[in-house]
Amino acid sequence: MSLNVGSYKFLAESSQMDFAGRLMLNHLGNQLLNAAGIHAEECGFGMNFLNKNHYTWVLSRLALECSEYPTQNEWFYIDTWLENVMNFFSKRNFIIRNMNGKIIGYARSVWSMIDMSSRNPVNLANLGDGIIYDYLAAEQECPIDGPSKINIKAKTPVQSSSVQYTDVDINGHCNSMHYIERMLNLISIDLLKTRRIKRFEISYHSEALYGDLLDNYYELDISDNKHLFEIRKHLTNEVTCKAKFFFGEIE
Amino acid sequence: MSLNVGSYKFLAESSQMDFAGRLMLNHLGNQLLNAAGIHAEECGFGMNFLNKNHYTWVLSRLALECSEYPTQNEWFYIDTWLENVMNFFSKRNFIIRNMNGKIIGYARSVWSMIDMSSRNPVNLANLGDGIIYDYLAAEQECPIDGPSKINIKAKTPVQSSSVQYTDVDINGHCNSMHYIERMLNLISIDLLKTRRIKRFEISYHSEALYGDLLDNYYELDISDNKHLFEIRKHLTNEVTCKAKFFFGEIE
Repeated sequence: MSLNVGSYKFLAESSQMDFAGRLMLNHLGNQLLNAAGIHAEECGFGMNFLNKNHYTWVLSRLALECSEYPTQNEWFYIDTWLENVMNFFSKRNFIIRNMNGKIIGYARSVWSMIDMSSRNPVNLANLGDGIIYDYLAAEQECPIDGPSKINIKAKTPVQSSSVQYTDVDINGHCNSMHYIERMLNLISIDLLKTRRIKRFEISYHSEALYGDLLDNYYELDISDNKHLFEIRKHLTNEVTCKAKFFFGEIE
Repeated sequence: MSLNVGSYKFLAESSQMDFAGRLMLNHLGNQLLNAAGIHAEECGFGMNFLNKNHYTWVLSRLALECSEYPTQNEWFYIDTWLENVMNFFSKRNFIIRNMNGKIIGYARSVWSMIDMSSRNPVNLANLGDGIIYDYLAAEQECPIDGPSKINIKAKTPVQSSSVQYTDVDINGHCNSMHYIERMLNLISIDLLKTRRIKRFEISYHSEALYGDLLDNYYELDISDNKHLFEIRKHLTNEVTCKAKFFFGEIE
């Protein structure tokens, strides 16, 4: 494994388990973000450095496939590395291992860096003399498909809810994992009981702020065993994010 | 400090910050529970031992006072110890220290142990030949008042919401910190912006299960600067928990 791959250890806490004793998707997603954050920090382009320039990393897309999920009080490992950097986007991948070192999942993500005042993307080549290009680990394998296009036909929201105090981060924006929480809570509990989330994709389009009313659209494509979500701001009809869940057998 | 006092280190993660960059109360509460869990495990009466006997620890009451809250990416410490054990209840206290060792908060809690099948309390003296009595640290000081009686007069709920997938734990019961999340989201954002939670108390009375519709009662006692909450099961009108918040100046 190249030095450009970071490996971090996390605990699957009891409070993060679902009723079946598996780490909930939103909490696993949060640990992927933590791993990404620690690795970026170690490489010298983490939030501490970025904040001085009024830049911040923004998650744009995520695709995740898991054959198993960490169970209660189990330590698990996340390896992460940069696969590629293309002007305004960087591709960061992940391997999830259980406490015995067995690979239980992979993830691919796309990030952009934005200027916090304008909210416009920043060219990554301009960051600290292109420091980020020293940290690619293109040879590291991540054998899952990247995030794909998500199309949902549903015209009527199944639920609306506001962005609340506990949803927002230090910038007043809805935490990216809290959209996933909303989606999980719209999926049939019987499905969540009898199957596992085999593949998950999400794309983020605009940022919802404290107080925004969000309309949640949900569509089940039975032919393809695909669960589609779209979250729009009620006032402007702007898409904040779209997601796709595929379920599989529990091993 | 006696050996009967456990001390554990936690990270205030970005995803656990509120808009003001302070650790949210529900996340701080969760780390108190984690510290309690680790300490009980180390002493030999944690969940691993208890689960074999089909027993589990249940949080009954909590009182917390904080002069400051951990900030983003700050490590903080929680010391915890058992003050007393009285047949069906044990009293566990906490000290919260910032990364420089300065005390920023105290908490007092009351726990019972229940039989998971009957949900009835178990006499703690019967647990492993009274092992728990070897681990008291009664001499350790915790200079805040314990949880007090909470009386709310409100007759009409301000909001109702169901216990959802992401709310429940491995037993299908609503996670104790998720009630706090609901309460925080009912408090005026201006108050949360301009003041800090100085003291917080909660008492748990019955367990809400997945799918239960919960009615949230909220009352502001201006004379006493006291925010009162009660959460009842809609169907049976049973109280699941009551809480009291006091706000203070931000230092």
